[in-house]
Amino acid sequence: MKKLINDPAAYVDEALDGLCSAFRGYQRTGTTGRVIARPLSAVPGQVGVVSGGGFGHLPLFAGYVGGGMLNACAVGNVFAGPPADVCAETIRAADSGAGVLCVLGNYGGDRMSFAMASDEVDDDGISTETVIVGDDVASAAPGERAKRRGVAGIVFSYKAAGAMAARGAPLDRVAAVAARAAERTRTIGVALSPCLIPGAAAPGFTVPDGTIEIGMGIHGEPGVEQRALPTADAVAEAMTTRLLDDAVKDGRRVALLVNSLGATPLEELLIVQRSARRQLAAAGLDIARTYTGHYATSMEMAGCSLSLLYLDEELEALLDAPADCPFWPCPGPC
Amino acid sequence: MKKLINDPAAYVDEALDGLCSAFRGYQRTGTTGRVIARPLSAVPGQVGVVSGGGFGHLPLFAGYVGGGMLNACAVGNVFAGPPADVCAETIRAADSGAGVLCVLGNYGGDRMSFAMASDEVDDDGISTETVIVGDDVASAAPGERAKRRGVAGIVFSYKAAGAMAARGAPLDRVAAVAARAAERTRTIGVALSPCLIPGAAAPGFTVPDGTIEIGMGIHGEPGVEQRALPTADAVAEAMTTRLLDDAVKDGRRVALLVNSLGATPLEELLIVQRSARRQLAAAGLDIARTYTGHYATSMEMAGCSLSLLYLDEELEALLDAPADCPFWPCPGPC
Repeated sequence: MKKLINDPAAYVDEALDGLCSAFRGYQRTGTTGRVIARPLSAVPGQVGVVSGGGFGHLPLFAGYVGGGMLNACAVGNVFAGPPADVCAETIRAADSGAGVLCVLGNYGGDRMSFAMASDEVDDDGISTETVIVGDDVASAAPGERAKRRGVAGIVFSYKAAGAMAARGAPLDRVAAVAARAAERTRTIGVALSPCLIPGAAAPGFTVPDGTIEIGMGIHGEPGVEQRALPTADAVAEAMTTRLLDDAVKDGRRVALLVNSLGATPLEELLIVQRSARRQLAAAGLDIARTYTGHYATSMEMAGCSLSLLYLDEELEALLDAPADCPFWPCPGPC
Repeated sequence: MKKLINDPAAYVDEALDGLCSAFRGYQRTGTTGRVIARPLSAVPGQVGVVSGGGFGHLPLFAGYVGGGMLNACAVGNVFAGPPADVCAETIRAADSGAGVLCVLGNYGGDRMSFAMASDEVDDDGISTETVIVGDDVASAAPGERAKRRGVAGIVFSYKAAGAMAARGAPLDRVAAVAARAAERTRTIGVALSPCLIPGAAAPGFTVPDGTIEIGMGIHGEPGVEQRALPTADAVAEAMTTRLLDDAVKDGRRVALLVNSLGATPLEELLIVQRSARRQLAAAGLDIARTYTGHYATSMEMAGCSLSLLYLDEELEALLDAPADCPFWPCPGPC
């Protein structure tokens, strides 16, 4: 597996440099440059929204810093959560006196670092709330939702929280809407090929020739099933079946996110999207919004994920609110 | 090489269906559904801008249909130009009485089909002009620029022409600005791994382990050099050197396009972008705009390309004009 990189030890920092030079407004701040912020996105008196996590999932997490999304983001090493001091700097960068919401994927390291950081900034009078997103239906049964990993569907909580904060809502309401988006989001992924951590000699896992792995995590966590790779239609059906097995009871109107895990090209995403939306429509869902592209990746892993957010009126309006972020679709007619 | 597809014979049509269901406004029109148009983008009295080409390069070509970009696009089979009748339908779909500009990559099949189509619509009183883009510096020497293939840099001609048409300019001026953008664009690509045509048993070419191919075309056309894959810095230097060897003499201010050929993830694009912009700046160029992402791909090919558009005041304003297209960056602060 070939990579366009330099020293593996410099991989994260060089890519963050690149993010800041390639896209307007992104800045590396904090003691180690691992706090990504955008001056455009800090609004006095508004609740701050932050996130953080390991690197190698762009545009997740740091790409979603922008007006109406995240105010700042803590960046760790590849597939390794950021340390607590970086998380504390991130919260401080996002605070303008109204408190800060931390929206995190359900990973132990990220949760612990942000918990320590929240304690630390509390001493300075900064109020925080934390919402944990666990949207991956393959990672635990419906009865154990608190054990589920957070994957691509976390972007719905970012968008809902960021738009609610931009309306000037107080911390408890921003946290409540992020939590509601998280509770109403379901994701399933399939992997076709592994990714390689820079500097590693070989991938930490494999996906045998001619098979896919259903439910593999975005760090290569084992899935729930390996099976022959049949058609895109059959893969989409296996995915939508698992999503619908844990449907939100009062939901019929949904936003659909079709996400490339990295190497899977747009043509294939579109084919899977076409199948999935037919199957979801046949099950009675009304697909009100569709997002298709690279939202949460695992470097060069091939595969894709499907996420459903079961909408209500408020969540739908928050999704549609404008965001100043190059990795979220433009508002308006397109 | 694994693909999320169904019947290879249905690949193009299913992906086009997916494009139309995933993104607002895209429609399949024409006798065979191979004319992509968007009702939002047709403006009475304005010059139409169209393109066309083989499939497997999304978002190129069909994705760039949208307000301020293309009015319609003819779609062929995988890596095969569209037939003349589809091109004629495309021109007709884009005509509102002010004539139609055809912006094409320099490939024999595309050129011939559109030449036949232009003759055909001429009988109906539709005026056309054609601009051929050949931006790939590896495909012919500076003295033989007319032989160069068109690759990712064609998007600069789309954007310039579409924005000029949206201003209400007449056909000759729209054609002139597209031609000027084409003359002032230089691209170089590197491939790390091949792509596979759906239904084919094996790739039509290989890139040996541990090497890259400099100058490979977006259909796997042979490049100018195979060499060991060293660092991203060294790859970027090999690329920028070739770009600068054929610099536009009166140009100093440039737009830089850093394009993934498919499988190469954003992290690596950003690292290459970081190196390239340092090297270009050291050579005296002023990088006024940067575009980084998936603009012109070859399905799951790994690799990237760098394009430079040597700006003038008018081209810069046209690049910045708003476009209603999900594959072109939002206008505004991000």
